[in-house]
Amino acid sequence: MADDAFLALGREAERMIRDLAQISAEEGRLIRLYLTPEHRHAADLVGRWMSEAGLDVTEDALGTVRGRLDPAGGGQNAARRLLIGSHIDTVIDAGAYDGTLGVIAGILAVREVVRRHGRMPFGIDVLAFGDEEGSRFPATLLCSEAVAGHFDSAALAVESVDGVRLDDALRRYGKDPARIGEAAYDPEEAAAYVEVHIEQGPVLEQAGEALGVVTAIASQSRHTVTVIGEAGHAGTVPMALRRDALAASAEIALALEGLALGNADDFMVGTVGKMSVLPGATNVIPARVVFTVDLRSQTDARRLEALARLRDEIAAIADRRRVTAWMERTHEVAAKPCDPTLQAGFAGAIAGQGGRAIRLPSGAGHDGQAVGALCPIGMLFVRCRGGISHNPAEFTSVEDMGRAVAALIGFIENFDRSFLAA
Amino acid sequence: MADDAFLALGREAERMIRDLAQISAEEGRLIRLYLTPEHRHAADLVGRWMSEAGLDVTEDALGTVRGRLDPAGGGQNAARRLLIGSHIDTVIDAGAYDGTLGVIAGILAVREVVRRHGRMPFGIDVLAFGDEEGSRFPATLLCSEAVAGHFDSAALAVESVDGVRLDDALRRYGKDPARIGEAAYDPEEAAAYVEVHIEQGPVLEQAGEALGVVTAIASQSRHTVTVIGEAGHAGTVPMALRRDALAASAEIALALEGLALGNADDFMVGTVGKMSVLPGATNVIPARVVFTVDLRSQTDARRLEALARLRDEIAAIADRRRVTAWMERTHEVAAKPCDPTLQAGFAGAIAGQGGRAIRLPSGAGHDGQAVGALCPIGMLFVRCRGGISHNPAEFTSVEDMGRAVAALIGFIENFDRSFLAA
Repeated sequence: MADDAFLALGREAERMIRDLAQISAEEGRLIRLYLTPEHRHAADLVGRWMSEAGLDVTEDALGTVRGRLDPAGGGQNAARRLLIGSHIDTVIDAGAYDGTLGVIAGILAVREVVRRHGRMPFGIDVLAFGDEEGSRFPATLLCSEAVAGHFDSAALAVESVDGVRLDDALRRYGKDPARIGEAAYDPEEAAAYVEVHIEQGPVLEQAGEALGVVTAIASQSRHTVTVIGEAGHAGTVPMALRRDALAASAEIALALEGLALGNADDFMVGTVGKMSVLPGATNVIPARVVFTVDLRSQTDARRLEALARLRDEIAAIADRRRVTAWMERTHEVAAKPCDPTLQAGFAGAIAGQGGRAIRLPSGAGHDGQAVGALCPIGMLFVRCRGGISHNPAEFTSVEDMGRAVAALIGFIENFDRSFLAA
Repeated sequence: MADDAFLALGREAERMIRDLAQISAEEGRLIRLYLTPEHRHAADLVGRWMSEAGLDVTEDALGTVRGRLDPAGGGQNAARRLLIGSHIDTVIDAGAYDGTLGVIAGILAVREVVRRHGRMPFGIDVLAFGDEEGSRFPATLLCSEAVAGHFDSAALAVESVDGVRLDDALRRYGKDPARIGEAAYDPEEAAAYVEVHIEQGPVLEQAGEALGVVTAIASQSRHTVTVIGEAGHAGTVPMALRRDALAASAEIALALEGLALGNADDFMVGTVGKMSVLPGATNVIPARVVFTVDLRSQTDARRLEALARLRDEIAAIADRRRVTAWMERTHEVAAKPCDPTLQAGFAGAIAGQGGRAIRLPSGAGHDGQAVGALCPIGMLFVRCRGGISHNPAEFTSVEDMGRAVAALIGFIENFDRSFLAA
């Protein structure tokens, strides 16, 4: 591919990124949550792009937008499909590239493949999922779980931060929860799932490479910790008699940090990202604190061992401070290795454009963790500035986006030879 | 006074406490904030009670309700007034007795004094202040500061938690901020200020006494601490590279607790009562945490020394964690001793009903701290169950409230002999 061809693809990706970033619940901050009017607006735009690229567009009962390219027909791989996906929801005050780049790269790559080859010997579906971040409901990857055929209907009862049940939100979005089962692929049909995503970490930048091949997606769990103490006047209850829910929570947050620091060799990270303090007055001792715990590790065993130690620490802190505290799991995914043959396919595509194929794990969770129950998965990481994501400062250059689309095109062009025939 | 007479006063106080407790922003929780519709409603009820007790009712430009009883006239003390006050605002999810008992005790006591004696040789004003708790605006005691003649007009620009400037809130409440100066008493006229209040601590209960004489109101300061770190993906930013604003805040909160525990001999208490975490998502490292610090001590010197050490700790924590953190003062009052002659007056009134006059300091702040700049102050504490306050479980018995009203009556009846003539 000529230099200016991949640059043109990068510039087009950049324009599409900008268009999607305009769709937000707030002016000046990017907030696009699952099943909101912004989600609807973004899904419509993505659907239009898919149509323009030559794909047949449908939506499933969880709102996943699907752009379908049928195979050339007749060959031995005509019944098999390559799934290419990512997500169009965001965190609160997000950057523009997380998720959206993967959807846009899929659309642009398939459009270019159609332009060059018409249809391929295998089918291709581009998927735009809606709930990868878990910013609105206390659950994530529901869209991709449904695609993989293991959606748990208990999730329909979860409540959003604004107090709406998921099944009600789906109905208001025009979807029928009874039809979620139809979203599942036949495992015989789904040959593989691949995803392009910004790295969200500093490895590629430090290596001086635009693209990297993901070896595995980290093991991850999310919990809610609730601490119940006793409210009291901030001026009259002696320190020794207090049952301060915030002081106990501060100790627990630091215990989590200490556990993660002690497991740095396993890339363990632990985060308290949300905390609410009640009753929440300057001169009242906090009676109830609720906060989240996000814990990830390259291996399930190390993560589960750290969780067990955190439970012990919580019990000891609660006992010493005479508060009640417990931890409830809201989300858990096992570590998910990427398929070696798909990794080799991406490595070949990177080498094909003169790059060095860096191999690296993903500390972030991705839809592939859920789709991995259906079929082999692979991921292509794209360098982002400073490793920053989930932040308005998130940035990936036009050049690097162009290289990513070009590598995905190369991967698709070789998919039947490198993977289906393997 | 016959036993059933003080019990009847206690029962009446209890009925009035219940009536005021009905006036709340929320059903099921007591929330009555400054310059809200609930404040208006409570002020109207208190004004009606004052009128029924034979007082002339006015309101000043900050909303303080004033019930005035003119002197019998002619005597040497006819130009002097005894001020009796407390407040009718509450914390969020409050108890029913804090503040309101003092206003009700003042009304019932003056009504009984009028019934027995008609007018006294000195004037009496019962004052119902509106912003002692500081639950809505980041400032407290503005009403009592205005009465004392040292209201700082800079406070007009403070913003409430719901984003309303104080001067706008006053105008919406029907008040003219330009007339706040008229709220001030002439120091020659204001002879003394006294207040009945629940203890909010465990001392009287442990001593087995219904009433106590306050020796001094604690030194107190409130600050807002802001910590600025950097947002980032909870799964991809290694622990060692994080600038986590919440982890830093947890360390600061525990440092505050440690300082207070180390100064327990000075009755020091330190509280983080409010905390907000931004952006506030499970999978995003917190970038900005804002929390309150409430620090009190029996002496100004020890409090100021602890604040200086807290500033050093904040600087060290911020430096080590590569975050930016600062602490801003929002409220400060010096320790305020109670006048020995007024203490003796309350002690005499307690002895007059057969009680033992326990002397104790007040860890809580009170309007007397502000009025103390105008005239001598005195306080009568009333036993409350378990020392609990700022909590729906706050409770004072009918008997103890009756004893408090009776002691206040005795104090008023002897005020010219025990204080004005002293």
